[in-house]
Amino acid sequence: MESQDNRLFTTRPVATDDPVPEALPPVEEHFPASHKVEVGALRVPFRQINLSDGSQLDVYDTTGPQGCDIHQGLPKRRAPWIAPRAGLAAPTQLWFARQGVITEEMQFCALREGVDAEFVRAEVAAGRAIIPANIHHPELEPAIIGRNFLVKINANIGNSALRSVIREEVEKLQWSIRWGADTVMDLSTGKDIHLTREWILRNSPVPIGTVPIYQCLEKVNGKIEDLTLELFLQTLEEQALQGVDYFTIHAGVLLQYIPLTAQRVTGIVSRGGSIMAKWCLHHHKENFLYTGFAEICKLMRKYDIAFSLGDGLRPGCTADANDAAQLGELRTLGELTKIAWAHDVQVMIEGPGHVPMHKIKENMDLQLELCHEAPFYTLGPLVTDIAPGYDHITSAIGAAMIGWFGTAMLCSVTPKEHLGLPDRQDVKDGVIAYKIAAHAADLAKGHPGANKRDDLLSKARFEFRWADQFNLSLDPTTAEHLHDESLPSPAAKSSHFCSMCGPHFCSMRITQDVRAAAEAGMAAMAEEFKKHGGELYVPTGA
Amino acid sequence: MESQDNRLFTTRPVATDDPVPEALPPVEEHFPASHKVEVGALRVPFRQINLSDGSQLDVYDTTGPQGCDIHQGLPKRRAPWIAPRAGLAAPTQLWFARQGVITEEMQFCALREGVDAEFVRAEVAAGRAIIPANIHHPELEPAIIGRNFLVKINANIGNSALRSVIREEVEKLQWSIRWGADTVMDLSTGKDIHLTREWILRNSPVPIGTVPIYQCLEKVNGKIEDLTLELFLQTLEEQALQGVDYFTIHAGVLLQYIPLTAQRVTGIVSRGGSIMAKWCLHHHKENFLYTGFAEICKLMRKYDIAFSLGDGLRPGCTADANDAAQLGELRTLGELTKIAWAHDVQVMIEGPGHVPMHKIKENMDLQLELCHEAPFYTLGPLVTDIAPGYDHITSAIGAAMIGWFGTAMLCSVTPKEHLGLPDRQDVKDGVIAYKIAAHAADLAKGHPGANKRDDLLSKARFEFRWADQFNLSLDPTTAEHLHDESLPSPAAKSSHFCSMCGPHFCSMRITQDVRAAAEAGMAAMAEEFKKHGGELYVPTGA
Repeated sequence: MESQDNRLFTTRPVATDDPVPEALPPVEEHFPASHKVEVGALRVPFRQINLSDGSQLDVYDTTGPQGCDIHQGLPKRRAPWIAPRAGLAAPTQLWFARQGVITEEMQFCALREGVDAEFVRAEVAAGRAIIPANIHHPELEPAIIGRNFLVKINANIGNSALRSVIREEVEKLQWSIRWGADTVMDLSTGKDIHLTREWILRNSPVPIGTVPIYQCLEKVNGKIEDLTLELFLQTLEEQALQGVDYFTIHAGVLLQYIPLTAQRVTGIVSRGGSIMAKWCLHHHKENFLYTGFAEICKLMRKYDIAFSLGDGLRPGCTADANDAAQLGELRTLGELTKIAWAHDVQVMIEGPGHVPMHKIKENMDLQLELCHEAPFYTLGPLVTDIAPGYDHITSAIGAAMIGWFGTAMLCSVTPKEHLGLPDRQDVKDGVIAYKIAAHAADLAKGHPGANKRDDLLSKARFEFRWADQFNLSLDPTTAEHLHDESLPSPAAKSSHFCSMCGPHFCSMRITQDVRAAAEAGMAAMAEEFKKHGGELYVPTGA
Repeated sequence: MESQDNRLFTTRPVATDDPVPEALPPVEEHFPASHKVEVGALRVPFRQINLSDGSQLDVYDTTGPQGCDIHQGLPKRRAPWIAPRAGLAAPTQLWFARQGVITEEMQFCALREGVDAEFVRAEVAAGRAIIPANIHHPELEPAIIGRNFLVKINANIGNSALRSVIREEVEKLQWSIRWGADTVMDLSTGKDIHLTREWILRNSPVPIGTVPIYQCLEKVNGKIEDLTLELFLQTLEEQALQGVDYFTIHAGVLLQYIPLTAQRVTGIVSRGGSIMAKWCLHHHKENFLYTGFAEICKLMRKYDIAFSLGDGLRPGCTADANDAAQLGELRTLGELTKIAWAHDVQVMIEGPGHVPMHKIKENMDLQLELCHEAPFYTLGPLVTDIAPGYDHITSAIGAAMIGWFGTAMLCSVTPKEHLGLPDRQDVKDGVIAYKIAAHAADLAKGHPGANKRDDLLSKARFEFRWADQFNLSLDPTTAEHLHDESLPSPAAKSSHFCSMCGPHFCSMRITQDVRAAAEAGMAAMAEEFKKHGGELYVPTGA
């Protein structure tokens, strides 16, 4: 999922001469009452939040192994799982699932999601879920992307032609997963693109996605007309051997759809889509990613790389949502899905973009129908175009809704979308907004246990356990900081009312009296009143 | 609509010894390409945005008359409208509408909304919309609240027992309407409460709401059990004469519902609701706001003050959403609505709070049914509880959805919700998040012309008219600032690509080539391809 704008973020200050990134502060510094735990023989990671009453809550954790030397990379936990698969023609999770085999990756995901491993296998076999897991990415902690699992989020990183600082890219990766990114896309277009990707993969516990056409375009010095299928396949192989877990490929941009974009308000806004459209027009030929799709499948299945079928014709504004170009391409992506599946290659489908609220469900329902329930992976959508500078919010609204309706993964959007290059704070703001959207979707879908964290936090709030309220939140240190702006004294964290209302007005405190009274036999009294409940007081003169 | 936390915000630094507020910078400083215009004999205000091609867009404007001396207050534009109504028993907009009379207020709202004045009258007569407009608030620029009009937003201000600085309150009012608040609630609980309210009303072009029970509680030194209907009626009269336009009154908190809250995760979280619940329990009597409702109506109709029937039992967490206590109270609010209407008093109904996405529509539909289509006025709702520090986002998601489903006004929530006292930036962030939610709802409802601003901004974006993109946005200076962080040079504002993608990757630029080619006869070529469109390329081995 390529976003227009959050391909890269600037880390300020940048010490370009320093090859070694500063280590991020330890997880405990951002999550003070938490520590990482590993469960079971597969050592499935969770973040354990310790509450003041001595109980704990284990939450899904993407932060990966801590304190590793990035020159060494992360431990290769999957190596022993992968070794026995040597020599298989299609060592893909889809192939195994169809054979009835439950892989270590499936077991790992099942434990992570708290579901049965057989259910994971069945969902993967049906194509309703994918586990992007290149056999050359042994550092991976596998995650499953499908609408019957927790909604996932992606964050984009990548260097630019102008700036290429490997340390920055690794730091961006670590920063994104610190706040909860489930996958990361490296959208680099600059020099050292291969080396940068190597450092990212060796240090990434999450699936890494790329848009290979970008590197191809670098190889032809930006001359779109010089792109060829051969060059593309070479580039895929190069990235495949490094361990990229999923490729965004714009194979659905067909010549026949291009004229349908001519009258749009914002034409084609996907970079990959516009590149392929220009190639098609120049050569007056069909998209080589479409005509060469089977060859691409054959390459990808060797490594178990998943397709993220790019929506090159996605709408770039609310006016263009669900139009003929977008829906035509979506139908083609559904056809390509079946071809990929015929090759035992896993598939997800990319989606918009910009869609007003009343058209979101239609888009989701059409995707499920036309793409045979392959997982949907959307960018937002933004539900209005009028708030540049706040598009993490405009898009979190659409993301929460489409996640509820069935989207499996949401590509985060930062406040800099449409405007510029996100910095650290922008990326964090985007990821947090999307953790909110994804969790709201899990709640609305009634995902088992999704409400547990909400209920524990709400109970802590009601009981004035301020520290527990902070520690159960998505961003404990920020919550505590905002609280302390009004109430800096430590005593305020144990007080049974707060400055917002003061003692007279503290509804929480009053309610505790109410609850006491209520529990002391109000119920009986209520029965008494219910008898008269029907007789509405009739005012004189009414 | 009382929010737990954003009753007041701290202005830093506070010059408590300075009785005169610093004037806000002029509107033009926050909206550089805009100027205020007045339309028609009623001088209806709009903000005119000037675009680089010489065209203009007029947008709804809440900022009010600029540059007035707050000691003099705003011009009394309604005085000549109100004078002829002297001596009427019920000079309410509802009464006039039912008589078939189109008041100046209705004409004003019609012009503001771009609809027919007769339509405004009919909606008010039906109780589907209200125009809160106390005859003692001549400074008001009337606004209409109803689901067939633009979705409105409220912002809360108010001083605390601890701090009472009149200049601050006026500044908060001006700051809130600068960013688009359609109404403002003064939730003061401190000393000088009467004088503070006087300054706010004399300087407010927007309807002002209050929660009178707060002042009553001050009068009895916080002793809830000493509250009486007589004291309440006196307080209403006092505030009515000052010009308060709507009162939040928690008349639906019945004794029979209180036990239903005992097993909730967060009990009763509304301050007004918990106050009345405690009073009921102490006296073992029915809520005097309920038993005295007709007397309250008779007082309010004299001034044309609208009811905002408080949801004292609204859920304080997602777990408690749509429960028996909440829905029981909602049914009672519907009964009270009919009584208010029998007295020709306008009514809106307050709503939650915290509701997971899948329960929002049910809540909205029940409100329309049980409250006979009286306008709904909700706080959010927050769609998850796990993000303190980001509740302007968690609640903007629910607000956008419930606005689409039919809520007429949304009470903004700041990032400090549940944590502390919002400052200037917090209030702005809350108001902007809610302008996004309200506009997204207008788009989804297909409100006539709501998409015009989106389409103009998107077109400007596609054509690299950066200044127009900024100026059409909700917050032009922030959008420009974020852009300049990456691209400070003035040239960057006219460049036909930006640093996000660079020239090779600029999809907008490529698309312009595509469009040119497409318009140059691609259509014919596409026909050619469509013929073969059905024949999907069948890969060898597939």
